[in-house]
Amino acid sequence: MLQLSRYPFHTLKTVPQTSDNRSTGLLLQAGFVRQEMAGAYIYLHLGLRVLENIKRIVREELDAIGCSEILMTSFGTREHWETTGRWDTMDNLFKVEGASGKYYALNPTHEEIVTPLMQEFIQSYKNLDNCAVYQFQTKFRNEARAKSGILRGREFLMKDLYSFHRNSEDLDIFFEEVRKAYVRIYERLGLGESTRYVFASGWAFSKYSYEFQTDLGIGEDDVYVCSKCGQAHNEEIIDPTGFVCVECTSKEHFIVQASEVGNIFKLGTRFSNAFGLGYTDAEGKKQEVVMGCYGIGVSRLMGVIAEKFMDEKGLVWPENVAPFSYYMIVIGDHLEEAKKLAKKLESEGATVLIDDRNTGFGAKAGDTDLLGIPYRIVLSDKTLAQGGYEFKGRKESESRIVIL
Amino acid sequence: MLQLSRYPFHTLKTVPQTSDNRSTGLLLQAGFVRQEMAGAYIYLHLGLRVLENIKRIVREELDAIGCSEILMTSFGTREHWETTGRWDTMDNLFKVEGASGKYYALNPTHEEIVTPLMQEFIQSYKNLDNCAVYQFQTKFRNEARAKSGILRGREFLMKDLYSFHRNSEDLDIFFEEVRKAYVRIYERLGLGESTRYVFASGWAFSKYSYEFQTDLGIGEDDVYVCSKCGQAHNEEIIDPTGFVCVECTSKEHFIVQASEVGNIFKLGTRFSNAFGLGYTDAEGKKQEVVMGCYGIGVSRLMGVIAEKFMDEKGLVWPENVAPFSYYMIVIGDHLEEAKKLAKKLESEGATVLIDDRNTGFGAKAGDTDLLGIPYRIVLSDKTLAQGGYEFKGRKESESRIVIL
Repeated sequence: MLQLSRYPFHTLKTVPQTSDNRSTGLLLQAGFVRQEMAGAYIYLHLGLRVLENIKRIVREELDAIGCSEILMTSFGTREHWETTGRWDTMDNLFKVEGASGKYYALNPTHEEIVTPLMQEFIQSYKNLDNCAVYQFQTKFRNEARAKSGILRGREFLMKDLYSFHRNSEDLDIFFEEVRKAYVRIYERLGLGESTRYVFASGWAFSKYSYEFQTDLGIGEDDVYVCSKCGQAHNEEIIDPTGFVCVECTSKEHFIVQASEVGNIFKLGTRFSNAFGLGYTDAEGKKQEVVMGCYGIGVSRLMGVIAEKFMDEKGLVWPENVAPFSYYMIVIGDHLEEAKKLAKKLESEGATVLIDDRNTGFGAKAGDTDLLGIPYRIVLSDKTLAQGGYEFKGRKESESRIVIL
Repeated sequence: MLQLSRYPFHTLKTVPQTSDNRSTGLLLQAGFVRQEMAGAYIYLHLGLRVLENIKRIVREELDAIGCSEILMTSFGTREHWETTGRWDTMDNLFKVEGASGKYYALNPTHEEIVTPLMQEFIQSYKNLDNCAVYQFQTKFRNEARAKSGILRGREFLMKDLYSFHRNSEDLDIFFEEVRKAYVRIYERLGLGESTRYVFASGWAFSKYSYEFQTDLGIGEDDVYVCSKCGQAHNEEIIDPTGFVCVECTSKEHFIVQASEVGNIFKLGTRFSNAFGLGYTDAEGKKQEVVMGCYGIGVSRLMGVIAEKFMDEKGLVWPENVAPFSYYMIVIGDHLEEAKKLAKKLESEGATVLIDDRNTGFGAKAGDTDLLGIPYRIVLSDKTLAQGGYEFKGRKESESRIVIL
């Protein structure tokens, strides 16, 4: 349990001016994040707890489909980036000069690291039965102008997963497993209903890539949704002469403003061939390894969730993501009762923040709403006289007494 | 539970030649780490589990003394580094040019980030009652020549804690709390008996700083231990004319080779003054904030623990740190029994790796020893005929049957 009287951070009375959108403003006001520079955010304790909750959900779903978590490096060797030809062609690649005169990349993505890494472990078709590794890693993008608060940064936290297969059919099967895992992830993050599976540009790798886009009413992307079959399309693949659904060829559509919360790519042999990553099949013949890659922007998701659920009083976190499940307001000399109740709730799996600061009820209740903690508990002379505590959900207007 | 038949990594038959010391060789051979470049290591799944176990112990002990975990940035603004004068004077500072033409630091330490961060939250003496924040963060050092395997890198994982106080007396009290927390951390990591509290150079900040050094027989530092009172001294503070104990002035001493596993610094007002971080005392007068900083090299600790406990058969992890508590060898068609037993052990808090690969007992037993998992279980026709499984501790020579 966290006691606010012993907590070094506090909320702000008003929304700071510097924010790019309202949710970033609320995250600043409520003390979840601070900006170190444009596009690079510090996560204060509450923000870090949200990030860790998002990571836990992503980790559980990826582990459930047999992926292995690892941790690659922030630096990439120039040789690896030159092998794929992306040292000179990749947009926004930070290049860093070392004391030895050598240059390194600050990785914005990890194909150049994971492909030679897995090359050591892949020789035979037997090594490709279940070969998928992921990490949570700080990514770096050399954006000329960073914008959109924590949605697009120079430095941000990503989950990236890479899979390795015998052929396209095996990739397709695993790809579908990941797609379903992503659907479960967004569901658990509270974004299930508002997140669409969107066809987008496949760039150099394949005809299409696939994105998950959450309807926000604001966002970087215009998503074209087929009125007939519901298939969503990123603006970048819409024919300049007019919308034609890639699934059902209907021209009827509507447009929603959305924010990308994940993308999944069929990389094919683009990177395995660059590094000469092949395998020997059951007949002893050399074959090409087929790859997939799958991203989720963890710090971006925090911004999207904040933007999606906020209301006029402040942030509103889904229970799975909230930094604490209970915000416990203590009025008067009842800290010991509060700690006892918090211990009981914690033994049932909840997390509890105790507001034992020397301030009035109004300030405490205002912070409960601003922070967006799902459940508010009040312990006071008045509630204890009624034999219990006052309980209210963040979205409820009426409180009730729960008997202790 | 992890099934090795579905795991993409494997051990190597022999120790790779590239290693700087035997433990790094074993970590490579056993599949805990891979080198991306000199001084930058990838943590494979087993290595990441060890890192996470170390982090958990450090986190629990720091939370217990009231510290708040946050996550700062890898980038630091040039302005902040210029404010302290360290943009030009800091050894090994990576400087990165952004697309906008601006330069950023890749932070090797975070005084330049945390001081202006906390400045916003510190106005009055009341804000300094319990003001200590920490993070686990990738640190970057522009070493001309990286060496010593994972002990000293260009990119490595640190825990760094910063504390803010009204005066030196308050700092001294908290400093002693952190020192005791560190003692508990090393105890829980299995390094309690072999880790010394060492006086070292205070550099620009104070007369002494304090290090924790683990006796390894190898290591970067010669530690001078007073034969009379036992106080340890880093070589850097030994008078060129000969050893004199700073505690008891005895000249009798012996020297041990050790490796640094933590350091704690009284920073005084060096950084608070640079940023103008002060506070208003109870009488309304402006006062200087006094700071402390406290580091633990998390990835380095993994190397030190590996080096400390390895034996002729491979790695030996203390139970608190081991990637799994049990290595379960399945011989014959008993995977279902193994999974059932693993579930039971996991319900009691253990972690289980199941070796269900299609290989012989010898290869599996060899990997158990190489990986250094504390307890080995064998499930086979033979053990089941005796009504149970074979059980053996990593350091034991005899196994015994445990009835299911």
